Amino acid sequence: MCEVIVLSREEVKSCLPMSDAIKAVTDAYKAFAEGQVEMPAVQHLDVAKYRGEVDIKSGAAENFGLIGTKIASGYYDNPKLGLPPGFAVIILLDLKTSLPLAVMDGSYITAVRTGAAGAVAASVLARKESKRVGVIGSGTQGRMQVLALNELFPLEQVKVFNINKVNSEKYAVEMAARLEVDVQAVDTAQKAVSNVDIVITAVPSKKAMVMDEWIGDGIHINAFGADGPGKQELDPKIMKRAKIVVDSLKQCRVIGEIQHALKQGLIQESDIHAEIGEILLGKKVGRETEEEITLFDSTGLAVQDIAAANVVYQLAQQKDMGQRVKLL
Amino acid sequence: MCEVIVLSREEVKSCLPMSDAIKAVTDAYKAFAEGQVEMPAVQHLDVAKYRGEVDIKSGAAENFGLIGTKIASGYYDNPKLGLPPGFAVIILLDLKTSLPLAVMDGSYITAVRTGAAGAVAASVLARKESKRVGVIGSGTQGRMQVLALNELFPLEQVKVFNINKVNSEKYAVEMAARLEVDVQAVDTAQKAVSNVDIVITAVPSKKAMVMDEWIGDGIHINAFGADGPGKQELDPKIMKRAKIVVDSLKQCRVIGEIQHALKQGLIQESDIHAEIGEILLGKKVGRETEEEITLFDSTGLAVQDIAAANVVYQLAQQKDMGQRVKLL
Repeated sequence: MCEVIVLSREEVKSCLPMSDAIKAVTDAYKAFAEGQVEMPAVQHLDVAKYRGEVDIKSGAAENFGLIGTKIASGYYDNPKLGLPPGFAVIILLDLKTSLPLAVMDGSYITAVRTGAAGAVAASVLARKESKRVGVIGSGTQGRMQVLALNELFPLEQVKVFNINKVNSEKYAVEMAARLEVDVQAVDTAQKAVSNVDIVITAVPSKKAMVMDEWIGDGIHINAFGADGPGKQELDPKIMKRAKIVVDSLKQCRVIGEIQHALKQGLIQESDIHAEIGEILLGKKVGRETEEEITLFDSTGLAVQDIAAANVVYQLAQQKDMGQRVKLL
Repeated sequence: MCEVIVLSREEVKSCLPMSDAIKAVTDAYKAFAEGQVEMPAVQHLDVAKYRGEVDIKSGAAENFGLIGTKIASGYYDNPKLGLPPGFAVIILLDLKTSLPLAVMDGSYITAVRTGAAGAVAASVLARKESKRVGVIGSGTQGRMQVLALNELFPLEQVKVFNINKVNSEKYAVEMAARLEVDVQAVDTAQKAVSNVDIVITAVPSKKAMVMDEWIGDGIHINAFGADGPGKQELDPKIMKRAKIVVDSLKQCRVIGEIQHALKQGLIQESDIHAEIGEILLGKKVGRETEEEITLFDSTGLAVQDIAAANVVYQLAQQKDMGQRVKLL
């Protein structure tokens, strides 16, 4: 009676070009700001014995007509077993009836929707002519953030820093070929963030990696690494100078980059300028001057997953893609 | 690289006889009492526009080597659309690596593991010679509870009450045939609970349906309907007389039957005798006298779903059942 579509990672990939992900995340942030989305607190499982953690994010999104749950893991010893460092699965239900519609790999969706989120934020917070990007972290997000930005800001220069130099050099070679621009691996975080227009931080760090005095006027920072209590990438003093925009104040105050500056009393919640959706809806302004420093603190919202999974689901149906499997 | 097994409702059904479900739930309650299970707070989505609600329950169970998430819905207008009044999907991951293992229908599992829970509780709380059961509610749980009890207590008489008489009469005919015992539909709740050994309440009610003065000495009550704030089936005064056992104090104090007596100050948390797993482990006693009234308050734990889904998953693998689908 009820069939669900199961979509593999490769199928998901073929249905979610970055440009569509950027559109989907824009819609997601707007829907959230319009109050069309219900998102209960994230469920977190700590599997200390196997150095793993699992987050379950769920939401109901009126505008997409969907309920979605994503089960996403990070298991730090998996690579030693020849396995990926984590998995993600997304389940979509019809909002009107709760009928299960689709089960799909969620790892690629997470990577792309997170990259897209950085570009969406930069579109209203970075300087229009931004061309130079400094990246802290040369993992999946270090790549996705730059690929997404390049859709909206044709880039001319990328600098990347990683504590592991082999990784950042591999990144430089790969990304130079993909973007066809100058990509340099640099040997300090300071060099990465000097003389750039946009800074991206995407490291699972627990201490500040970017210092206040390194951040020049007019820079936009996309802070993506902090998504849990204790996680941190930026000198909290930066918050005092920056116009701060968050994806969700409710989430960011607990698990985002701003948690530290709030805790230290350097800023108050009233200093947070906006949730990104409010700017996209035109309810609040984005960047106002060439000189101001802007900061986007992203923790990742269930509605981003739902929006991106919806793009995949719709296209997969059109293309008659995926396996139809009997569930009920 | 990664294939998951997808199991339909029919396949799940063929892999989960009630006797195995009773064993699985016993193991689940013990594991919970031993601290082998991590269960974050239930995620609840209220889809008021379509008179629906969705609960997402997740857990990590060391003893089963599994992480499980169940997405279960109740949509009250679905039957008008020719659809079931809810759906449930269970996803299992390997605890060691977080590799997704299986996706299966969860509605049958929910029904059976909940029925089994009542039998497990009665095995240590009801009188040994219990033969007569009174049931309030003639839905799925009204059936499952009795089928499960019959595995452990060969029943001789069942009385059922439902506000809708057509339903209780249908129940009586069906269950008499299945159990081969006397099953009567009665026209008041009081008649259903008089002169019985075990009372089952399984109604999505928001007010007391069973009064204190109707409950005779020595009765065991399985209270299964209350699993949300405001839900209630019993006169809170019953709590003052009964030895109260819960599945999880953390859950029951908020969403179980005991919420009302606690709120009214009729009982304190220190009056709760035990969590059921403590009794099954032999750490606390069950029924001690023929006369005492016992009460089991069940709200449903993720670990019950994981334990029952594990039985299905193991057997499906042995039987080479289900569809293997590429996910990664």
